[in-house]
Amino acid sequence: MTLAFAEGGVTAPLGFMAAGVNAGVKKSGRRDVALLVADKTCPAAAVFTTNAMAAPPVLVSREHIAGGTIRACVVNSGNANACTGERGVRDARAMAQAAADALGCRPDEVIVASTGVIGVPLPVEPVCAGIWAASEELDSNTGDDAAEAIMTTDTFIKTTAVSLDVDGVTVTVGGMAKGSGMIQPDMATMLAFVTTDAPLSAEACDKALRLATARTFNRITVDSDTSTNDMCVLMASGAAGGAEITSHDARFVEIAAAIEHVCGELARMVVRDGEGATKLITVTVEGAATEDEAETAAFSIANSPLVKTAIFGRDANWGRVAMAIGKSGAHLDPAHVKIWFAGLLMCENGVGVPFSEDEAAVALGTDEVEIRVDLGAGTASATVWTCDLSYDYVRINGEYRS
Amino acid sequence: MTLAFAEGGVTAPLGFMAAGVNAGVKKSGRRDVALLVADKTCPAAAVFTTNAMAAPPVLVSREHIAGGTIRACVVNSGNANACTGERGVRDARAMAQAAADALGCRPDEVIVASTGVIGVPLPVEPVCAGIWAASEELDSNTGDDAAEAIMTTDTFIKTTAVSLDVDGVTVTVGGMAKGSGMIQPDMATMLAFVTTDAPLSAEACDKALRLATARTFNRITVDSDTSTNDMCVLMASGAAGGAEITSHDARFVEIAAAIEHVCGELARMVVRDGEGATKLITVTVEGAATEDEAETAAFSIANSPLVKTAIFGRDANWGRVAMAIGKSGAHLDPAHVKIWFAGLLMCENGVGVPFSEDEAAVALGTDEVEIRVDLGAGTASATVWTCDLSYDYVRINGEYRS
Repeated sequence: MTLAFAEGGVTAPLGFMAAGVNAGVKKSGRRDVALLVADKTCPAAAVFTTNAMAAPPVLVSREHIAGGTIRACVVNSGNANACTGERGVRDARAMAQAAADALGCRPDEVIVASTGVIGVPLPVEPVCAGIWAASEELDSNTGDDAAEAIMTTDTFIKTTAVSLDVDGVTVTVGGMAKGSGMIQPDMATMLAFVTTDAPLSAEACDKALRLATARTFNRITVDSDTSTNDMCVLMASGAAGGAEITSHDARFVEIAAAIEHVCGELARMVVRDGEGATKLITVTVEGAATEDEAETAAFSIANSPLVKTAIFGRDANWGRVAMAIGKSGAHLDPAHVKIWFAGLLMCENGVGVPFSEDEAAVALGTDEVEIRVDLGAGTASATVWTCDLSYDYVRINGEYRS
Repeated sequence: MTLAFAEGGVTAPLGFMAAGVNAGVKKSGRRDVALLVADKTCPAAAVFTTNAMAAPPVLVSREHIAGGTIRACVVNSGNANACTGERGVRDARAMAQAAADALGCRPDEVIVASTGVIGVPLPVEPVCAGIWAASEELDSNTGDDAAEAIMTTDTFIKTTAVSLDVDGVTVTVGGMAKGSGMIQPDMATMLAFVTTDAPLSAEACDKALRLATARTFNRITVDSDTSTNDMCVLMASGAAGGAEITSHDARFVEIAAAIEHVCGELARMVVRDGEGATKLITVTVEGAATEDEAETAAFSIANSPLVKTAIFGRDANWGRVAMAIGKSGAHLDPAHVKIWFAGLLMCENGVGVPFSEDEAAVALGTDEVEIRVDLGAGTASATVWTCDLSYDYVRINGEYRS
């Protein structure tokens, strides 16, 4: 399979338009309402946070995706509409209604997402006015505007797109996402929207999205915290042409792989832009008894504040990795544990081996660092992505709400 | 039961001597070898880390406590003797042998503990020389020297002691502990040593220690990381006099309560001196379906970097607490959740309520902050102690090893 990078993010696939405007939720005047619209109602799938305090937009969108087809996604940033009770549900429904009115579709064909501060009532009137304004600016080359409008503490927009040839038909998959704190998604990430012009069925959308998120958005962590508002949506316009593709179709495999690629790129962008992050850390655990245990051990490393601060400090403190796998509960053989930092072997048979501190300091000075571990207990493996823990994480989160 | 504060830490109870010396492991010249000795071999109990990468001193001490009686504990700081393989086991045994030779007891009557950097071979000769030196400085009023010698990044020594009257006999319980990073103990804390002159049996020691640690050292967290070297030891000299006390004895309850009190005081000192900590945070979860779920939800709050940075920033960002309980997996009723910060109601029926930001800022400006949550799902409760997450945590741990 050859994937070619494409311009345009969520509007790179045929059959989609987007817009991003400022509706006044963000006092900075930055864009804060995004609209992503298919030319016509189309198959779609979504996964949502498993947080028991799931926010009203999640509750409403869970209802709306049940039918398997949607027309649009509407998103506001700056306010999460979470812990807002029945009023929050009414406000989320009002956002769907505003989009439906503007687009001429049913409100249950609209997915609603919100991100920002928790526990403050949504300023629903400006948001709905913003939805109307966005509907007047819809265009097929404005994916970046929409990506900007879903940002909170993100420092850069997160979009990507790829094209591939599937049986002589060019198919494109695009996506956008936002981070960048409260990130250890469970079933989805903060917010991510993926589009394709492949003629996927609703069932194929659902399967492709679940396969992709399991190994991408569900394998990243910034701070181990799972948001109340996580959501990842996939829409398939079918505008590339051809007959409907189910998950049993031979073409499904390649398209699903392209979707996973886009999700993986977005997920790594979220981590790279994690609050205060200076480095992207790839944690690979091998030699595990099962893939679940490999994932558990990898998350134990990736969420350890001691590991994350050591990487921030360019310190090859592999003992903290030994601690993290030991506390994880994953089966391991202490006498056969191996640990590598940036490709340099630090620990073999559970014991430290001599290494060049200078070489290690150079290797840890780059903006991407790999930690690799062999548990010596089997053949399964898993990779998780995280970022380092810096002064800026503390600054950003000690001052966020005020 | 009336507990009176007593001076002297681990040497406050009758029948114990201690010492702390510099053996050259810490280049700073600070004390780094501690010796705690009972006048004669006595009943004792110990609990150890559940980390699968448990360090050699833990492996050796597990063997030595099996007999239920010990004479001494020997501790070095500055080097954890962890991830050191068979050499590490030989070095831990050498420490026990040195203490045994100096004291005239068997090596399997000596508990060995180490704390400090992981993965560096122990400088065993200076440590053993230090043990000999310490044995020559043993005294019954040197508990503070021993407490100082077990410190790593701790900024103050952690000792306490209380006396109580049990059926006309004055019984004293004393203790010392060290923190202050890699702290979410599981079965014990980093290192803690508790002494009593009550004539407890070995079985009573074991039961009292397990009861005490379950609600003290096992309910604290600085950074969610569980050390490879955690250990908590209780020694009962019996020097207060009287017949042996088993766990079925009426006197056991009061003495066990005093031991829990001492462990609780030490545990809170560890948190208050957590790396970079500026505040002690008490997290109480009520209205849970079970005590286990209350503890799970409380740890989810206490380990959330977003909650910890908000408290550092004096920000009443209760939405992050809502997120933390929601992700914890504990049963809750979103429509009946209540959240208080420093006694101020922030959230009722799962929805934010108006509160005075000024009042909240004042309440969060103190060095002790209480977070209280009602899950609305039952009647069980649990309390966990943690500290805030500050710039200094990042500074200390980004630079620790180098």
